[in-house]
This record gives sequence, C-alpha cells and structure tokens, in this order.
Amino acid sequence: MNIQTPYLLFLGDAADPLAAKVAQGICDWRPENAIGQFRMEGCHADLGLRDMTIAESIEAGAKTLVIGVANRGGVISESWISILRDALAQGMDLAAGLHNKLADNAILKVDAEKLGRQLFDVRHPTDNFPVAAGVKRSGKRLLPVGTDCSCGKMYTALAIEKEMRSRGLNADFRATGQTGILITGKGVSIDAVVADFISGAVETLSPDNSDDHWDIIEGQGSLFHPSFAGVTLGLIHGSQPDALVLCHEPTRTHMRGLPTFSLPELQLCMETSLAAAKLTNPNAKFVGISVNTSKLDPEAAESYLKQTEQKTGLVTVDPVRQGVSRLVDSIGVAFS
Amino acid sequence: MNIQTPYLLFLGDAADPLAAKVAQGICDWRPENAIGQFRMEGCHADLGLRDMTIAESIEAGAKTLVIGVANRGGVISESWISILRDALAQGMDLAAGLHNKLADNAILKVDAEKLGRQLFDVRHPTDNFPVAAGVKRSGKRLLPVGTDCSCGKMYTALAIEKEMRSRGLNADFRATGQTGILITGKGVSIDAVVADFISGAVETLSPDNSDDHWDIIEGQGSLFHPSFAGVTLGLIHGSQPDALVLCHEPTRTHMRGLPTFSLPELQLCMETSLAAAKLTNPNAKFVGISVNTSKLDPEAAESYLKQTEQKTGLVTVDPVRQGVSRLVDSIGVAFS
Repeated sequence: MNIQTPYLLFLGDAADPLAAKVAQGICDWRPENAIGQFRMEGCHADLGLRDMTIAESIEAGAKTLVIGVANRGGVISESWISILRDALAQGMDLAAGLHNKLADNAILKVDAEKLGRQLFDVRHPTDNFPVAAGVKRSGKRLLPVGTDCSCGKMYTALAIEKEMRSRGLNADFRATGQTGILITGKGVSIDAVVADFISGAVETLSPDNSDDHWDIIEGQGSLFHPSFAGVTLGLIHGSQPDALVLCHEPTRTHMRGLPTFSLPELQLCMETSLAAAKLTNPNAKFVGISVNTSKLDPEAAESYLKQTEQKTGLVTVDPVRQGVSRLVDSIGVAFS
Repeated sequence: MNIQTPYLLFLGDAADPLAAKVAQGICDWRPENAIGQFRMEGCHADLGLRDMTIAESIEAGAKTLVIGVANRGGVISESWISILRDALAQGMDLAAGLHNKLADNAILKVDAEKLGRQLFDVRHPTDNFPVAAGVKRSGKRLLPVGTDCSCGKMYTALAIEKEMRSRGLNADFRATGQTGILITGKGVSIDAVVADFISGAVETLSPDNSDDHWDIIEGQGSLFHPSFAGVTLGLIHGSQPDALVLCHEPTRTHMRGLPTFSLPELQLCMETSLAAAKLTNPNAKFVGISVNTSKLDPEAAESYLKQTEQKTGLVTVDPVRQGVSRLVDSIGVAFS
C-alpha cells in the first residue's frame, strides 16, 4: 500500500468525536498529511481543521480522500456515495480501513476504473508477499509487544518515532494495522495476510536500512491472546527486533474479548516474547515498559509506574502522561 | 472443504513414482477412497490400482477425480485439460492441491458452472472462519508438533488414527494441509487462512465431540521455524491439545530451507510447545516422541530411539519402522 498524501479527511455524518478517531490519529501524528476536513450535515466530530469542499482541498494539494470515520458495522453508508464519487470525478483517490471494501462497491469500482483512480482498502492487503527468509537485515528495529490487544502499542510506537525524529535521529514508523497505514499512507495490515506469509510480509515492510536507522514497527496482539497469538509470533520473527518495549494496561481484568483468560504477569510476558525474538535476533533485549494508565488517577498511576520500574529494572512510562523521552534515552544507552 | 468420495486418482503423465505421492498417500491411508487410477501415456507411476476410464470409475461409484500428481511448478498441464473436462462432463467433481487453482482455469471454471460441478482447490480455503473463542471444547485432542517442517507430523497423526481405530477407539484425523485434505476428503489448509483466523479455523475443524472421542489433528511447521512459526502457534492454540507428540528428523543439519538456522534441542522444543499449549489447555502433556529415522541404518536408528527414550522418559518410536502401538499405549495410560 502506498497512498498518496496529503489527505482530505472525510468525517461524514460521524455520530460523535470517537467515531472519527482514525481521522484524529492522522491529525495527531501526521498533521502535514491533513489538509482539511469534509463534514456532512449532522456530523458530530470536528478536528479543528478547515472545512473544505473537494475542489478546495484539491486546490490546496490534497491527493486522497480518506474515510476517517467508522459508523456502526464498519460499512460504507449509502449517503456517502455521491460525495465519494465526486471526489473520484475531480481527481482524488479514496482510502478506507472499513470492514467492507470500497472496491466491493460496484459504483465506486466502475468509476475508479473508468477514471484511473485508486481505491485503497487498507484492511485488505493486495500484494503478494514472500515466505520469510530469516536473514538478518541491516539497520535497527524496535517492536512493542503487549500483554494484550489494544493496550497502546501503536501509540507507543508513534510516540517513539516522533521523539526520535525530534532528536534528529533517523526513524520510521512501520504500520502493521489499518489505522497506522492511514496515518502514514503505507504499511501492511498484517493480520489480514495469508498465514504462511506473516513473517515474510514484515520482512518486506522493514527492509535493509542504514546502520543508524531505526524502524519503529507497530505491534499487534499478544503472545498470550489465544485468538491472535499466531499473528504476534509471526510479527516478532519477521521484525527481528533489536529493542522490545512491553505495553500494558494495568486495570484490565481479562484478555480482550475473552472473559475466562487472565492477563500474563509482566515478567512471564517479557520472557516469552524475548525467547521468541531471539530466534531471529539473538541480541534482542527489552529497553522499557509503556503503560496505559488512563484508567488510574494520577497518584495511582505514578505509584504503579514507580513500582513496575523498581520490580523490573526497566524504564517505565505512560507515553500520554509523561511522553517517551525516558524510553528513547534508554534505547540510546542500550545501543550506544 | 468437503470432497465427495470415493475417488478416481489421476496420475497424468507422472515423471516418476514420487510425483504421485499424494495419490500414494490416499491409497495408503484411505484405500476405500481409491476406486481406481487414470494414467496417461508415458506415466511413470503405478499405484497397483485398476486402470479405469472415467466412465468405468463412475460405474464403480467414483464421485471425484483427484489430481494425485505434481509436475514441476505445481501447475495444471495443458495436456490434462481435455481429460479433466471429460470428467466434469460425465458427472465428476475435480479436486487438486496444486499451487495454481483449478478455478483459475477459465475453461474448467465455465464447464463446472454450466454443469453444476465443484472444483476443490484444497490449498485455497474458501470458507470464512470466526476469530478463535478459546472456549474449551469437549472430547480429546492430540497434536503432533515438530522440531522442523516436514519431519513426519502428518504420517504420525494418520498412523495414530489408524492404530486407535484398529483398537476400536473413536478417533478422527483432522487434516490441516493439502495432502491430508485430499486423503480424507475434508479439512482446512491452515497455512492459507487469513492470519487473524488461524486459531478460529482450527476450532471449526475440531468441534465439540463426545468425551471418549479423539481428534488427531495434523501438525504444521514448528515454533522454531522463523518462516512459519505463527501458523504453528495459532494451530496449537486452536487445537487445545490434551496430548502432544514431538516429531523429529535427527539427521537434519539445519531448519528446512534456512541453512543458518539450527534445529532446537528436543527438550527446549517440548518446553516451548507445552507452554504454548497450556494457554488454551492447562492439562496438555507430551505422551511420546515420533522420530523419522529413514536416513539412519537400523542399528543407528535403534540406538537413537533408545537414547532419546532414556533421556526424555517418553515413549519414542519410528512410526514407519515400528508402528505407533507403543505411542497409543502411552496415550491410554496418560488418559485412563
């Protein structure tokens, strides 16, 4: 996937600000990709960007209209179609991370073919990937791994990339999920790849690079999530991470979606992840822990972070409350 | 996949007996599915079955023509097409485990649609699978796991099923790869499933069953193979195995296809596999070891098996040289 930037962000008839969280992510992490927003009547989200017509956004340089909103069921609303067709007609590509595909909409498909535009369904990889070779690649790689799904791996990776870049370091976030792909315009939705090619797709996503370069690869799932652990293991092996960061949400009472599965102890999760990582990179090591403390009050959060740091001996931060500056310091020390 | 049996086995213009190994597997493990063979001029394989025309096989009850031969590149030969069309025209379905699909051949596809016949491309699952639920299922399950790919997991599983059935036990082999699917007429090619659904597909393949029933699930890959370990981990979690059997080929100097990766120690491979299995079945245990000693002379084989048995304390057999009777005894003891 290689989506042309910058974007006009389509918020449609978003029911609330949360429904536009993909668009919000693009604004937060790649503001230079967000030229303007397009809101329909009754839209309850506002990114604070300039409201633009399609023509205005094209004049401002927009190349792609990104559907940055999810409605119930992740479908393409009938009420959006005339606007999407207009964007195609005026010269834009379309991109979406919805469950059903733009390319499965017969009207949009015919329009796009006739006009020579592209429809990017970022949840549905179209490339063919090789089987992983396992050959060590040049450059450095960092991968967040989680005690569970949805505990802050993408946020942590994007924050590390941003902090590294602000220090003049050579770093690229590599997206492995639909939101990350829409934010950066490229990547592979790794959980949608055919099983035999998980690791091979990650090898393709993060090729050889210069010795001082860091790929900050978006993590997925958890080795302890019985629905998705295969994806996580393939991602770890394909990433060949030099540095690992453990991501954790401390108030969760069970694995996401599975009430009978408890979360692993941090230490066990790190040992298991590290053993897996060492198969393709014997020098892999943990450089820190990233905790999502959003459900704790400030005192409880501070105390949890402090205790975890003492117990594990690893720099432990909440990337939202404190930033990842100390994590990046720790990477600097480990790989100096 | 649910392929109608029995079969007419198509050997085409097989270059040598090895090229017909899929057909040979069907004869070995499901002789009742193999009504006859169809050989073209210049065929160098012979299963010892009756040579039949398509009409003769249909009269004998054959429902499906199975392409039991692989030529270089795994393609469908031009010279086969007229025969395959004839089989469709006379009322048979077609099944194949080749890299390119029967359904991608425009002529066969049109014929099949017109005639209402099915084309089974067993390497390419067509079902949609759910995300794994991780809920413990009734009945018992055995899964072979390997130190490497292609070290005897399918053979071991089929031999255990056969031995259990011969003792009047209630057992079903569950195929997870193309050869196993063609042998039994059903299953899921697990490495071709979309990554998110590996474990879910295995849960579907091996549903709830009676307490005395054993699913003998075909193993795939290895947790120590950096190209395919994600498939293996998803298979382990979805299988929820009660019993594990370690499969090993002792003369291999490196992981299949990857000259720089050495094989894991048996003990480490068992510990890692068992830890993974316990996530979805805390009572999982190893019941034995199955060694492919085909590259050792009889004395060396005997000595290797004996030493391994002493070192690990687990029943260790070569299923080809000795059968799996002692393995099935061991299962009986462990689950009495």
